[in-house]
Amino acid sequence: MDDTVTFTIPRTQLPRVVIIGGGFAGVKLAKSIAHKRFQTVLIDKHNYHTFQPLLYQVATGGLEPGSIAYPLRRAFKRTPNFHFRVGEVQDVRPAQQCVTTSIGEIYYDYLVIATGSTNNFFNLKDDADQFMPLKTVPEALNLRSILLQNMEKALLTQDEGLRKQFMSVVIVGAGPSGVELAGAISEMRKYVLPKDYPELDFSQMEVHLFEMADAVLPPMSDKSSANALAALERFGVQVHLHTAITSYDGNFATDDSGQQYRAETFIWTAGVKGAPPAGLSKEALVPGDRIRVDRYNRVEGFENIFAIGDVAAMVTDKTPKGHPMLAPVAMQQGEHLANNLERLQADQLMAPFEYFDKGNMATIGRNNAVVDLKLKSFSGFPAWFIWMFVHIFQLIGFRNKAIVFIDWVWNYFTYDRALRLIIRPYRKPGRTVITAEGPKDK
Amino acid sequence: MDDTVTFTIPRTQLPRVVIIGGGFAGVKLAKSIAHKRFQTVLIDKHNYHTFQPLLYQVATGGLEPGSIAYPLRRAFKRTPNFHFRVGEVQDVRPAQQCVTTSIGEIYYDYLVIATGSTNNFFNLKDDADQFMPLKTVPEALNLRSILLQNMEKALLTQDEGLRKQFMSVVIVGAGPSGVELAGAISEMRKYVLPKDYPELDFSQMEVHLFEMADAVLPPMSDKSSANALAALERFGVQVHLHTAITSYDGNFATDDSGQQYRAETFIWTAGVKGAPPAGLSKEALVPGDRIRVDRYNRVEGFENIFAIGDVAAMVTDKTPKGHPMLAPVAMQQGEHLANNLERLQADQLMAPFEYFDKGNMATIGRNNAVVDLKLKSFSGFPAWFIWMFVHIFQLIGFRNKAIVFIDWVWNYFTYDRALRLIIRPYRKPGRTVITAEGPKDK
Repeated sequence: MDDTVTFTIPRTQLPRVVIIGGGFAGVKLAKSIAHKRFQTVLIDKHNYHTFQPLLYQVATGGLEPGSIAYPLRRAFKRTPNFHFRVGEVQDVRPAQQCVTTSIGEIYYDYLVIATGSTNNFFNLKDDADQFMPLKTVPEALNLRSILLQNMEKALLTQDEGLRKQFMSVVIVGAGPSGVELAGAISEMRKYVLPKDYPELDFSQMEVHLFEMADAVLPPMSDKSSANALAALERFGVQVHLHTAITSYDGNFATDDSGQQYRAETFIWTAGVKGAPPAGLSKEALVPGDRIRVDRYNRVEGFENIFAIGDVAAMVTDKTPKGHPMLAPVAMQQGEHLANNLERLQADQLMAPFEYFDKGNMATIGRNNAVVDLKLKSFSGFPAWFIWMFVHIFQLIGFRNKAIVFIDWVWNYFTYDRALRLIIRPYRKPGRTVITAEGPKDK
Repeated sequence: MDDTVTFTIPRTQLPRVVIIGGGFAGVKLAKSIAHKRFQTVLIDKHNYHTFQPLLYQVATGGLEPGSIAYPLRRAFKRTPNFHFRVGEVQDVRPAQQCVTTSIGEIYYDYLVIATGSTNNFFNLKDDADQFMPLKTVPEALNLRSILLQNMEKALLTQDEGLRKQFMSVVIVGAGPSGVELAGAISEMRKYVLPKDYPELDFSQMEVHLFEMADAVLPPMSDKSSANALAALERFGVQVHLHTAITSYDGNFATDDSGQQYRAETFIWTAGVKGAPPAGLSKEALVPGDRIRVDRYNRVEGFENIFAIGDVAAMVTDKTPKGHPMLAPVAMQQGEHLANNLERLQADQLMAPFEYFDKGNMATIGRNNAVVDLKLKSFSGFPAWFIWMFVHIFQLIGFRNKAIVFIDWVWNYFTYDRALRLIIRPYRKPGRTVITAEGPKDK
């Protein structure tokens, strides 16, 4: 840390709520307490909020990052008693009511941990530097670059096996991210890439999707899972259910039966775990690195520390493993906690949190999605239309809604993905990759 | 270079034209010979064409890179006998009619060098790692990040001088880039940044513009230069004419009278020089590293090597230093050379190139621009309107035109610059900068 850096926000008479993380949970909480009597300090590693459900469209050239990410300062402009800082938390020190961060020490009256989740590579940790994850905007842009770079590399070899390797993609995990990405990449294979690369034979490009469970989109209804599987196979995605990947060496992915799949692009969407800050005791965590919270999202053992969103595990009879790690849960917990903090300040009893499940959805390319509502599941064009409407509606800000709408209309009618710029040349460790400066060795 | 990399484009009976560089000149040439009887090979470091006149809007958060850059493969889809490769030229070997590149050896019948220009730091070369240039998309994104990061850093210090340093900007060079950037940054200071950073006092933020000549926009008419200067000063830009910067140490810029200016952001738009490939003799170059060409854009001493655009210096009585390094010259030379190559193939005489100057323009923020036509100069709102219309019209592709139009309408009515994401944390060498991972020391 720089000596010149000091955390300079003055205390007022208002109780200070420090929120770590500007994801769905943290932003919703900060918005919801904005006009209550608190001083709010929001800290995040990035200066923007990411709408993660559409990251896969950034990765496949359909949307710009600026359309799905939103500057946090802009989201809170003219919000009274609100302060935002870019910084990273190093340590929580409950005894001092203090958080140590890269930008100094921040004292709190209430601390809310909304640090979300991170990739869980399980026993493949050692191979993980060869993986492309998809949790952040920079990762999505890296994936966009590597997909396109690999096509450029495919043009530069006369070795057929190698050419096929550069073109092929392995995706691990058939949750919404994996399924939507597999659909988008096979659409690119069908409509976009053959126009850009008439010299390549795209019947050689394989798209594999691996899932350990016995269905794609495992948390959805059987009907929706079956519909999604059928749609993926129609798009030419090779789906491997009940199959685990046991290694990836940069060239070959190996599954648990010993079968090998040759692919240069290896995308990991298989697992997430909580991303708690340091300084909490091991006992505060459940398996999967989430923080155990009570019905009020309070971290067990503390009066004034809360956790919300993906990082929180509220273990109840109905949710023995905590709630699913989804945006709606995070937003509902953020809003609920705002009211509970107000109750706490007024010496009232807090209300227990109840998740209201509005349903689940995923899209698998053009005209195709699956939607599970409480009473009904449906798929195809109507589901796809609802999927688009719901996602546009949830974006922050009118500009982003408008630009995404225009880009989608454009992509739909032109069968195009316009944003095929290799701006962040990405290099696998130890590999030759075509960069802006030409191919480079390790 | 990787052993597995081979340049694999087969020769046909058609004569092969190899074009180095996908800027205005190279793209125009490739488009213009597309339906003539040539095999065209275009090679560029990037997989996209950059519309450089609007880079400053990417740097100041008004436009996304995808709106002003265009994938080269998309620009040439379904073009017969056309091949594009991402790669970098290492060496031209006229004796073998061959170009050595990062992706292998490419043989040619006609070679066209359209490598453009690069930054010229003159005698400030040693300080240049502290400069922010603005010639490429990644540079524009880096500048966007550093402008915003420096505001975040300004919040983290209690040292008034340091805070002012983080907020202040020095721009060297009052050509179109420097003037347009100074206008855009002072607009951000007035309309955008105070909303994002209510804790900062923007009367402390200085924007300095330095120019060695005795007018801003030196190649334009006296009237336009005077109008531009008046507009800049109205916007609060401190313009220093007849003044050279002699050093910048990362904290202070020093001018030729010894006066010092404290600023963290130091932007260099002062000089360009040709960017010729290696392998041509020193005698082929004029001062400023441009390649001396005859009236047919032929490199002196060679029958089948041509240079067009910024890198070419066609020295005539009317143009003793070659043509100005502008997009219209590059495009006209590209188109003209296409016809001359066809004439050469048909054993006809080539036609000498004549530049048709349609005029010159620059904008200085909202409602304000200067336009010089052959017979008339004007400024203010009508000039600004024409500036917008001409620039939108010149962008490649309907999508980019539409998105830029929408972004501009949006920016105009909201007084906003929406794209304030710090996605490429930029670090000055040896300096602490707030990155996505928090501030980091050298």
